[in-house]
Amino acid sequence: MDKAALFKISYGLFLAGTATEEKENACIINTVMQVTSIPARVTLALQKRNLTHDLIIKKGSLALSILAQDCPLDTIAAFGLKSGRDVDKFLNVKYKTDGNKNPYLESESTAMLSLSVFDSRDMGTHTMFFCDVLDALLFNDKKPITYDLYRELKSGGKTEAAAISSAKKAEWVCSVCHYKYDGEIPFEELPDSYVCPVCKQPKSVFVKV
Amino acid sequence: MDKAALFKISYGLFLAGTATEEKENACIINTVMQVTSIPARVTLALQKRNLTHDLIIKKGSLALSILAQDCPLDTIAAFGLKSGRDVDKFLNVKYKTDGNKNPYLESESTAMLSLSVFDSRDMGTHTMFFCDVLDALLFNDKKPITYDLYRELKSGGKTEAAAISSAKKAEWVCSVCHYKYDGEIPFEELPDSYVCPVCKQPKSVFVKV
Repeated sequence: MDKAALFKISYGLFLAGTATEEKENACIINTVMQVTSIPARVTLALQKRNLTHDLIIKKGSLALSILAQDCPLDTIAAFGLKSGRDVDKFLNVKYKTDGNKNPYLESESTAMLSLSVFDSRDMGTHTMFFCDVLDALLFNDKKPITYDLYRELKSGGKTEAAAISSAKKAEWVCSVCHYKYDGEIPFEELPDSYVCPVCKQPKSVFVKV
Repeated sequence: MDKAALFKISYGLFLAGTATEEKENACIINTVMQVTSIPARVTLALQKRNLTHDLIIKKGSLALSILAQDCPLDTIAAFGLKSGRDVDKFLNVKYKTDGNKNPYLESESTAMLSLSVFDSRDMGTHTMFFCDVLDALLFNDKKPITYDLYRELKSGGKTEAAAISSAKKAEWVCSVCHYKYDGEIPFEELPDSYVCPVCKQPKSVFVKV
């Protein structure tokens, strides 16, 4: 099995935000899809280790910001690579809230969905949430950022041709969160104790692509 | 609620192929996502009205071709707009089969996943299938086609700027299958008996975008 084949599934990039009485938090996710139109329902998967995961279970609702192509990479990093257990992610961030007081970003997004969880399913490392779309706002006609474009921009905003050419060089990617190793030391020479800096999985989950 | 906001969720484009003893069939889907990496599991949603839906339930497995950016639009139309109840979709098509004898396309794809259904969930108009990844093949370093790019190419391969400019003109889109109405008669003047030519939903499900 070539696990790199799984990286070919396309995704968008979203901010899942929720607020309980104690804590307001949000994290970046890519695994979102609409399942039915009548009624409008979407499903999304969140890692159990995320604080946002626990808060969504408590609250039963969330606001989903559909990030636009011009969303600053710093914003994605701030919400995606830090934990709400350590920092207040919304400190100094301009945001709005939906009808359930869940936070979303408007100027970084192209649209927003206000979601209510009607069921969930335990998937081991992740939980899938099944949601009714309570409200949906379209902000502009910007294109949504895809996870693929985000990774391309993050690696230096290469043109498509350059990205394809550099893709021919072997790279080590975390099979869990798709973090691309970019350290100075060749990946093979890293100690066995190395863990993914993003999702903390062991070195053994990395695959060569 | 502005249902056009839901169109901002990004998807890839896939061929879901399966073969029972009686019938070999496949259809185009966009709603696929990986849920966990350990073990490798994906979920996908299929309309109940599709023949492929019934065949997957019967077989319990499928091959998922992850279509590449250069997949001919005719191939997507042939598998997406016709029903296996009326035609043999694989007639005159060069294809391969996975370990479960399920059909997939290699030269039109960038990768292939061989999937085994371990559970399903009734979602009204659709069924969600939860699958183990039995095998995964990476064919090349082509980019996967996104549903967004497919719609752009289908409407004449406009450049991004042209697409954005034309997007400012109101268009009527089926909220179920995202078919864009392109008839001569203004949409508002169509009879109430009009149905979406792709998914057969009534005129009332169309939204102005």
